[in-house]
Amino acid sequence: MSTKAIVLLSGGLDSATVLAIANAQQYACYTLSFDYGQRHQFELNAARKIAAQFNVVQHLTLKVDLRKIGGSALTADIPVPKGEGAPDAGGSIPVTYVPARNTIFLSLALGWAEALGAFDIFIGVNALDYSGYPDCRPEFINAFERMANVATKAGLAHSRFKIHAPLIRMSKAEIIQKGVELGVDYRLTQSCYDPPSEGIACGFCDSCQLRKRGFRQAGIPDPTIYQSPEEIDHAG
Amino acid sequence: MSTKAIVLLSGGLDSATVLAIANAQQYACYTLSFDYGQRHQFELNAARKIAAQFNVVQHLTLKVDLRKIGGSALTADIPVPKGEGAPDAGGSIPVTYVPARNTIFLSLALGWAEALGAFDIFIGVNALDYSGYPDCRPEFINAFERMANVATKAGLAHSRFKIHAPLIRMSKAEIIQKGVELGVDYRLTQSCYDPPSEGIACGFCDSCQLRKRGFRQAGIPDPTIYQSPEEIDHAG
Repeated sequence: MSTKAIVLLSGGLDSATVLAIANAQQYACYTLSFDYGQRHQFELNAARKIAAQFNVVQHLTLKVDLRKIGGSALTADIPVPKGEGAPDAGGSIPVTYVPARNTIFLSLALGWAEALGAFDIFIGVNALDYSGYPDCRPEFINAFERMANVATKAGLAHSRFKIHAPLIRMSKAEIIQKGVELGVDYRLTQSCYDPPSEGIACGFCDSCQLRKRGFRQAGIPDPTIYQSPEEIDHAG
Repeated sequence: MSTKAIVLLSGGLDSATVLAIANAQQYACYTLSFDYGQRHQFELNAARKIAAQFNVVQHLTLKVDLRKIGGSALTADIPVPKGEGAPDAGGSIPVTYVPARNTIFLSLALGWAEALGAFDIFIGVNALDYSGYPDCRPEFINAFERMANVATKAGLAHSRFKIHAPLIRMSKAEIIQKGVELGVDYRLTQSCYDPPSEGIACGFCDSCQLRKRGFRQAGIPDPTIYQSPEEIDHAG
């Protein structure tokens, strides 16, 4: 029987690649998505399709209402920034940061892992093209792992919870190259923070810009359908 | 303006006492309860009443479906142990342990704290009369606090998230004495894991037994209404 792993699967490019990596490492994969009141709910459908493509053991979507907590453009009534200056400008943390999001997601993954008897949790954080989010850095991953091993019954008994962040030091281009190598169908993935409709990306938010640049730098055609700038002007 | 604090409020004896302590320390209190699919849903009403008694700034009940994760007698179809041998027997962790529960709850409190601009989070964990749960120990609280300060935008900027666990080294009797001193109305609190009806405690579960013993040792009359053993026999 293969070793079980939980893979956090948002439906985006990074987490789809992480699933492909965990799958290639022969883990029996359990994928976990969160319905947290995000503007970009379509990503939950993307996650389901990606999980199905990789034939995971179980895919679970958990509802956690982060809107009630607020504090982010992704969950509250704060506009998502578009265009120049949106992505990782000047090292400041953008308004799309969701307070403690990866801490909350990893905590729920930890609970499921313990209930399933799994010790391996995969997350697609990335410390390079990462928009400056504090919970995407190696320091955070290490601190969470240490905490997990004192927080749980299974951690106390075995002390071997491991948070795998295989993308943490990869560029977006390297991630895309790796994913293509492992058979990820990036048409199924959704990165846009503010998609105008299902399957269409705005092309202007932080996340769209990082994605576009990644494909360009990887020298791989970008399968994403972006809304044209004209349409944005008319919708204005 | 007083300093804001988040207080985790389950509706039980311990967290009500913690709220009284935070309140006495002049914090502007924001209380947080979780509807996590627990058997003992009545405790959510208890939490509301306690929050109202202490006139908190805001009381928030967040829904997090831990039933989907399972792994505990409190959320899954595993019977709650009753009678002899139920409480802290032999140091093993009982089936009422909910995988990663305090990690999940503190993570959500951390998110709300960050959104509110608060740095102080109060939790009623207790390392003595604690049923052997790993996430009630000082080691866990310290590890979580360290993690919180690298996980968040506010933590990075100020590095002063503090997890307050004022009961951690107190006996149940000392907690009750403290609470009575600070005006907690323990009739409003609910400890029972498996209450037969609202306002009635089973009297036999782990949590009821710790509560009974606490009042006895504190020399304070226990205001709890326990179901009589006869009724249990007849209901059996």
